[in-house]
Parts: sequence; structure tokens; C-alpha cells
Amino acid sequence: MSNLVLAINAGSSSLKFQLIEMPEEKLVSKGLIERIGLKGSKITVEYDGRKFSDEKEINDHVQAVNVMLDNLIDLGIIRDINDIDGTGHRVVHGGELFPESALVTNDVEKQIESLTELAPLHNPANLMGIRAFRKLLPGIPHVAVFDTSFHQTMPEQAYLYSLPFHYYKDYGIRKYGFHGTSHKFVSQRAAEILGKPIEELRIISCHIGNGASIAAIDGGESVDTSMGFTPLAGVTMGTRSGDIDPALIPYIMEKTGKSAEAVLDILNKESGLLGISGTSSDLRDLEQDAEEGKTRAQLALDVFASRIHKYIGSYAAKMHGVDVVIFTAGVGENSDEVRARVLEGLEFMGVYWDPKKNSQLHGTEGFINYPHSPVKVIVIPTNEEVMIARDAVKFGSL
Amino acid sequence: MSNLVLAINAGSSSLKFQLIEMPEEKLVSKGLIERIGLKGSKITVEYDGRKFSDEKEINDHVQAVNVMLDNLIDLGIIRDINDIDGTGHRVVHGGELFPESALVTNDVEKQIESLTELAPLHNPANLMGIRAFRKLLPGIPHVAVFDTSFHQTMPEQAYLYSLPFHYYKDYGIRKYGFHGTSHKFVSQRAAEILGKPIEELRIISCHIGNGASIAAIDGGESVDTSMGFTPLAGVTMGTRSGDIDPALIPYIMEKTGKSAEAVLDILNKESGLLGISGTSSDLRDLEQDAEEGKTRAQLALDVFASRIHKYIGSYAAKMHGVDVVIFTAGVGENSDEVRARVLEGLEFMGVYWDPKKNSQLHGTEGFINYPHSPVKVIVIPTNEEVMIARDAVKFGSL
Repeated sequence: MSNLVLAINAGSSSLKFQLIEMPEEKLVSKGLIERIGLKGSKITVEYDGRKFSDEKEINDHVQAVNVMLDNLIDLGIIRDINDIDGTGHRVVHGGELFPESALVTNDVEKQIESLTELAPLHNPANLMGIRAFRKLLPGIPHVAVFDTSFHQTMPEQAYLYSLPFHYYKDYGIRKYGFHGTSHKFVSQRAAEILGKPIEELRIISCHIGNGASIAAIDGGESVDTSMGFTPLAGVTMGTRSGDIDPALIPYIMEKTGKSAEAVLDILNKESGLLGISGTSSDLRDLEQDAEEGKTRAQLALDVFASRIHKYIGSYAAKMHGVDVVIFTAGVGENSDEVRARVLEGLEFMGVYWDPKKNSQLHGTEGFINYPHSPVKVIVIPTNEEVMIARDAVKFGSL
Repeated sequence: MSNLVLAINAGSSSLKFQLIEMPEEKLVSKGLIERIGLKGSKITVEYDGRKFSDEKEINDHVQAVNVMLDNLIDLGIIRDINDIDGTGHRVVHGGELFPESALVTNDVEKQIESLTELAPLHNPANLMGIRAFRKLLPGIPHVAVFDTSFHQTMPEQAYLYSLPFHYYKDYGIRKYGFHGTSHKFVSQRAAEILGKPIEELRIISCHIGNGASIAAIDGGESVDTSMGFTPLAGVTMGTRSGDIDPALIPYIMEKTGKSAEAVLDILNKESGLLGISGTSSDLRDLEQDAEEGKTRAQLALDVFASRIHKYIGSYAAKMHGVDVVIFTAGVGENSDEVRARVLEGLEFMGVYWDPKKNSQLHGTEGFINYPHSPVKVIVIPTNEEVMIARDAVKFGSL
């Protein structure tokens, strides 16, 4: 018997949803409510190849969920709210409390709230979504799925910073990692495509979107990842700096007269591809600009690809070799140019990739290695919503 | 004809020297003046297998140099000051002004002074040494040798951070790298030992002492290195954190109520091996403690080795493979345990090392790879003083 599951991603003023039929993993409908609590709230629903949108005043997340459910009924997508069998919610930070997804209870809500400090922008917003659904659909299971859970398998030596040890005990300072749901999805999919038990594979997963992280996945378990205590660390991103010399923060503060928080804001929002190029955080713009000979755009791309390239070497060393390299998310799935730059020169570790196959693959699944390559290189469109729906079924006992 | 050259390393209250006969590179004498300007100043001189020491009031660097020269004469090491043909001075920061060593002129002094901001503790002290020697030995050449020069060959995409571009232009914010004199010395020595032109070698040089940095050296030129804008970045060190999520600085500030400068101080002086273990920054202590089953010491060693191991993978990727891995400096030359942990599992990139050879090599030069290993692994005692003396000869036209 099939179940209809809602996969939810709630922001502070938005709510994204996908209605998924399980276990078929069939996307029935998806949509977005924007500008919750602001002027000009808007709802968009896609169904059956068509797109519907409406504007109306939406003051809070409870109202947003009500509007969403009404729309699903009005459009004939569901008959009534009883058709929904469960929901799964993306929650950014599970700290060390959630090594896996969890059926939401009042206690779980409190635990998620207790982690607010680790994700001050995201966890409270994610919780607003959870609370709205629990209120309006009290009879069904609601499951929290954490961006951090997959990385909880990292060994101590990977997650611990070289800081005074009590910072870990007292303040929870450690590497958590993010994009876990995506890394888990694509690594499981890679094993499936290869027809091999994931336990036998060493995988480097490159989730490259506007945010980007690389994960080392050994035997199906994350053993290291490039993001850290926050999603700022690691590789160069659209507007995020990734790794820098930490001594630069006090130096920039002194030079600019800005507070630590203000500098952090610059590292998060005005750095990365945008900072170097001075023009755009969007890789497509920069590829265009670079082709037209704009040197700063070229430089931004060079830095961007080089950082990912180095992480691949680093994680191959970590796992004593690698069997599979995966590219996923917006840039990873679509930019053959970034993939080419990242993969160039990795033959020494067994990566033999086919430029022709690479250049033909955009947004779809497929191999881009030569058949004889010991290391397989696979482009896999990520699907965090399906992963959330799977956990809604599993942890909601559907 | 031989020349006698002094290789000098001046700190704010200390002055180390080596008297070297060139071009034979023969160490004639070495010594140290400590507590300059403080109570209980002390001078130590080693010569002809013996060690002489004396205590006397030394108020400044000029007096220190005078005392040193007097001692050299009194001990019969030189007849008079005219026996000294030139001096070479370690200077920590050459910024972008000094891609190589420089004969010191008044202009060069000013340039070194202008870089004070980049090395506020070191450059002024180094300058005090230079000025004292120029004053007392005005008739001979004095050459400044910079820790940063060797890394000035790094390409823009390696030295540029993913920050707003104007930070580079306005504030000189970029990766400079350090330990350049050491990385240059050992990489040149490796080529010599192998009897190959350095232009044909891809070398990863691991300078692991109390401070530690890894360099990727392609064809004799540094193309990347783990230290950054300051010597804080990169791998875990004795008391330095190395790379961390930059967002941690504002977080620690908030949690502890400390200023950015105070947190930076903790990252420099209370982190690294000391921070994790809680007991010592000295690797020998920790190896001992780990053997006795102390878990935090074990953890510190795990983190320490793992970070270096990952940099090797990263730099192999950077250079599209590697031909030589070098271990140097205190820990690199002496700890076979650290070397073993760092090298473990690098067979996938052609590193086949011999545990027996490794365990036998402490503080002396030698190969620790198996003869058939495509990648050579060499322990090379570093000698920054000889490198400084070489440049004193070259740039002083001796």
C-alpha cells in the first residue's frame, strides 16, 4: 500500500514542499510558499505538468500550511487532509543529539530548540514548520531529518579541532558537517548503480551548489567532510569564503574597524566567487565572463575548482584510495567545465575521465569515467526530498 | 678562497648565530645570546667541540653583537672582526616586496620596516639584528633572507583567499607561507641526493617542528603551502590550531567574552597538541603518554598525523602526482612514529615505505621508501643557516 508523504523545508519566511508517493518515490506535486509574514505572500504549486500560483496574506507558518493543504485539495491533488500519511522535515542542525532522523515528540522539539545556538537562523525556522504541521495534522507521524546526522559517524580525530579540549566539552565546538542528506542519498545511489555493497566502497561525494561540501564516505559512513562547525568552512562557495587563515578575522577587524560579527557576515555573504570576481556568485555568469576574457571571473573559477580538486586528493589520502567520485547539486550536476577542472590531473590516483562523456552530461545521471578507469566518476542528481520521505516512512513507521 | 659568513637569527631579546666557512659550508662555531635587555643576559658559544658560556649585562642588540664578536676573538675563533666577510639575516616576512634575498641598503631596511604590520613580533626584532651588524661591521655586505621568499612563486589561485578582492589590494591579505628557507634547502638537497634536475621533480616537503608547514614544490618552485597569511594556518602544531572553521572565532568570543586578539592568542599559544592533550606541546611527551594509555595524548597524535597526511594527498592532487616526500625539522627528522602515521595508506599514490628503514632513521639523512617505490621518501635534516650563508655569499657578491 502506498503512502503520501510531505517533505518539508521550512525557512523563516518560506516553506518548500514536495508531496511524494512512497515507496514508489514518485513526486506527485511540489510547491513553495514565499514571504510568510511579509507583504505579498505567494503560493506556487506544480502538479501534473502545470504550475499554479496565488497571492494572499499569510501571517505565519500555521496559516501557510493551511493554505498549502487547501491548495492541494482545491487542485484535486488530495481529497482531504487525511490523504497525507506523514511528513518529513529538513532540520539543519542535529548537533550530537541526532545521529539519525527522529520521530518528532515534544521532547524532540525541545532538543531541536536546544540546538538553536548552533544554527541560530535555521533551526528555529525549521521548528516553526514542524510545529505548524503537528498542530494541523496531529494524527500522523512527523519526522525530523537532520543535515548533520550522516556525518555523526566521523571519528573523533576528524571532527575535533586542534583547540583547547574543553571548548568541545563546554561549547560543543567540533566539526559537524552539513549536506548530510544529500551525501547519503548520492552515495547510496552510487552503490546501487554500481551494483556493489556500499560497505565495499570508498566514495568522495562533491555536493557543489551555491553552498558546497565534499565528503569522504568509507563503507557507507561519512569519515570526513569539508564543512565544519558551520557551513562556512571548506571549499570556496558562491558567497562563502571556505577555509581561510583564522588569524585574518582579527586582522580584517582591525583594518576595517568592523566587529567580529560584521566580518563573519562578509565571509558568509560577500566572499567566495562573488568576492573574488567582484561581479557574481553564480557560476554560469562567471563561466560566461571568463569566456569573454574577464580575468577576475577566470581567477574565481581557478580558485573554486582548485580547492575542490585539493579536497579530493586529501580525502583519497584519508581513505587510502578512492573507488568512486560523485558530482551532485546545481553546479556538480550541470557544469562540465567545473567537473573537468576538478578532475584534471587525478590520473595518479586512478581517475581516468572521458572529456566527451563529461561534456555531454548536464543534470542527468551517468558515468563520466572511461570504462577502464579504476575510479568511477558519476554524476548523480541529488534528491534530498526523497531521502526525507524515506526517513518519514522509516521513522514514522509508515 | 674561503669566506667566513655569519648566519644570524635575531629575536627581540635573543640573537642566534652560526659562523660558517663558505663555500665549504663548514660550521666553524655557533652560539646564542639570550635575555638581551633583561636581567641575567647570557652568551653561549660552541667551538671545536667545546661549549663556553658567560653572563654579563647586555642592554641592546648592538652590545650583543659586540659581545659576540669579542667572544669570537677571545676564543681564538677569529683574529679580528675583519675576518668576517659578510652576514646573512633571517627575516620572517618579506611580503610581496622580496621574492628573493636582498643585500641590505637603507632602502631595504625601510622596506622591511614597512612590512612590520604583517609580522609585528618578528620583523622589528630581525631588523634590530641587521642594524646592529651594519653599524659594527660597516665594511662588509649584509644580506636579508626571508622566510616568505621561496613561496612567492605560488600562482595567484593558490595564494588568493576567497575574500572580497580589494582585501588583497588594500591590506595585502593573501597566503604568504613561511619556512621557505627550509623548504628550499631540503628540496634542493633532495634533487642532489637523487641526482636529478629539480626541474623534473614534484616534491612535497613536510617541515614538522614545533611550528609545521607542508609545501608543494613543482620543478623547484613552491606552488602551494599550508601556512597562510600568518604561521597559524595549516596543520596542527605544538600550540597552534592550524586550520579551523573561521566562524569559530566570533563564536568563541561570544562564549568566553574574550576579545578577538585574546582568542587569536589562544589559537596561537594554547591550542594544537597542547590544547587537545591538555598536557604538552612536545611530541616526545605525547608519544610517551600515549604509550602509557593516555587517551587525550593519543587523540592529539591522531589529529596531528591525520592533518599532515591529508595535506600530502591534497598536494599530490595539486601537482598531479608526486615524486618525492621529504620529512624535515625536529619532529620530521626524529619521530619515526609520526612519519609512519603520516605515510600509512599512501600506496594508492605510489608511496611504498619501509617500516624498518623508517624506524632506524633519527636525525640523519636517508631514504625510508622501498627501493621499488615510485615515490621516494627521504628524511633530510634541514639547515636554514647554510641556506642563509649561501645567500649571503650570492647576494653579498662574496
